[in-house]
Amino acid sequence: MTVVSVGNQELLGTVSAVPGVEAVLFDGSGTPPRDDIEIFIGPYEARSGAFDSLRDLRSLKAVQLVTAGYEHVLPVLPPGVVLANGAGIHNTSTSELALALTLASQRGIPDFVRAAQTGTWRHAAGYPSLADRNVLILGYGAIGRAVARRVLAFEASVTAVASRARTGDDLVDVVHGTQELGALLPEHEVVIIVVPLTDSTRGMVDAQFLAALPDNALLVNVARGKVVDTDALLAECRSGRLRAALDVTDPEPLPSDHPLWTLPNVLISPHVGGASSAFWPRARRFVDEQLRGYVAGAGLQHVVSS
Amino acid sequence: MTVVSVGNQELLGTVSAVPGVEAVLFDGSGTPPRDDIEIFIGPYEARSGAFDSLRDLRSLKAVQLVTAGYEHVLPVLPPGVVLANGAGIHNTSTSELALALTLASQRGIPDFVRAAQTGTWRHAAGYPSLADRNVLILGYGAIGRAVARRVLAFEASVTAVASRARTGDDLVDVVHGTQELGALLPEHEVVIIVVPLTDSTRGMVDAQFLAALPDNALLVNVARGKVVDTDALLAECRSGRLRAALDVTDPEPLPSDHPLWTLPNVLISPHVGGASSAFWPRARRFVDEQLRGYVAGAGLQHVVSS
Repeated sequence: MTVVSVGNQELLGTVSAVPGVEAVLFDGSGTPPRDDIEIFIGPYEARSGAFDSLRDLRSLKAVQLVTAGYEHVLPVLPPGVVLANGAGIHNTSTSELALALTLASQRGIPDFVRAAQTGTWRHAAGYPSLADRNVLILGYGAIGRAVARRVLAFEASVTAVASRARTGDDLVDVVHGTQELGALLPEHEVVIIVVPLTDSTRGMVDAQFLAALPDNALLVNVARGKVVDTDALLAECRSGRLRAALDVTDPEPLPSDHPLWTLPNVLISPHVGGASSAFWPRARRFVDEQLRGYVAGAGLQHVVSS
Repeated sequence: MTVVSVGNQELLGTVSAVPGVEAVLFDGSGTPPRDDIEIFIGPYEARSGAFDSLRDLRSLKAVQLVTAGYEHVLPVLPPGVVLANGAGIHNTSTSELALALTLASQRGIPDFVRAAQTGTWRHAAGYPSLADRNVLILGYGAIGRAVARRVLAFEASVTAVASRARTGDDLVDVVHGTQELGALLPEHEVVIIVVPLTDSTRGMVDAQFLAALPDNALLVNVARGKVVDTDALLAECRSGRLRAALDVTDPEPLPSDHPLWTLPNVLISPHVGGASSAFWPRARRFVDEQLRGYVAGAGLQHVVSS
């Protein structure tokens, strides 16, 4: 039997049902319940330090996350232990939030919510549709593709940008490389960020990046706050030249006295990209597939460090 | 030459460019500029009484609207004059707003806008995705199909309901008739209303209709306010059992002291379904096609009364 620890009650039934697997609930707090845990499934919405206990797991061979982000685990991953992320689990929920933020910002929803507080019906015809916009998706993995599929349903065009240029797929003719950003940005009225946080994406959306965008462009970040230079974005939004919709911020949580909160052209959601009812059904299907593959000897898929 | 009056400056160039057509600007106010106007293109966002002048147009053969709704013109349409609506012009903008309202409501955007006012970052995992929801689209003409196409991109299911049952299309297997609503409503967590206002749709969404919906269902209205019994909806939302997102209301505009404004589970936009940057490019293409067909002797398409 492969002993697998599970960080969330919601996955216990799924993991227990995999033939050849013995499941035990463990969120990383306190003493591990057994010393023969071979796979540690990290808790969703992990508290700080949840992965510190990895060093105490003497039989550990693999860590499986149910998040796309994994940068917080790398520093405490024991040597020789495989790390797999939850690639694909969040595609649906995160891409949906990217569209919710984009459509709400384009069509004036935050203004209407504020107008309701004073009972003000003020017809306004000037909002930009998502239709006819050129949308640049920065990061073109599984979430980027899910965003592209949804954007295309709105009669908008999609430009995909990834770390390296490559041929396209069924959604885009070509995937551009980040070195082409300088030429691409001036043509795009909406930019949706879905890159992972790495040394090369940290601070990527800086003053120069933002300055290349056309007036009134919308920057949507559902990736990681540190991809964007917050001060540079604040300056562009404060002046009214750019708009933003942010599910992630730097610092995060955003302090209550942060000036970003006060700008009417900035929409902020509290890092809920993956947090919707779409999550658990997809997490269960994913973990089930991963463990069946592991038990069958194929190892884990979606390995990000080993 | 066919003399065509145009209610908006934005269409003048398009209409003037149609071979065989002479265009004149006239929004329906005051004395008609000529007595040989054959087609009256109604102004977009018509002021009250804009169509009263139709009776003064002695050469009038047809009225072309750039709106989907036409109920306001029927009472003043002179005998023998053809009325064509702007079928299709608004599909893009209105279906996009339907999704903006739906996604914003599902994913908590109004709560986040309000939380921003106090600088409150409150992570909340419990919002329902649009993914996995059963969505009922009430009204399955051109706008209904545009809504369906967008909803399907979000991994939700679509049930189409129209006045009469018929076979489906590339988006749905079957179109249900309204007599099936009683059986269908309890299975649907999101209902999007896009029916025209007619004698049979007026007050259609009444207390009985709403009572058939499951707890926490979302009612989205981008059609006409009078399709919904406002008092019945208010009662269901006040109790917290249902949620609503309304681009149209009854009465409209909604008075500033109306209790609907105060409910956190009701999102209200000020009748901006068709009002976005997507409108004019599509209105121009539509009017161009309509007039070319008319001049060629095919008459107007999309006739709703003659």
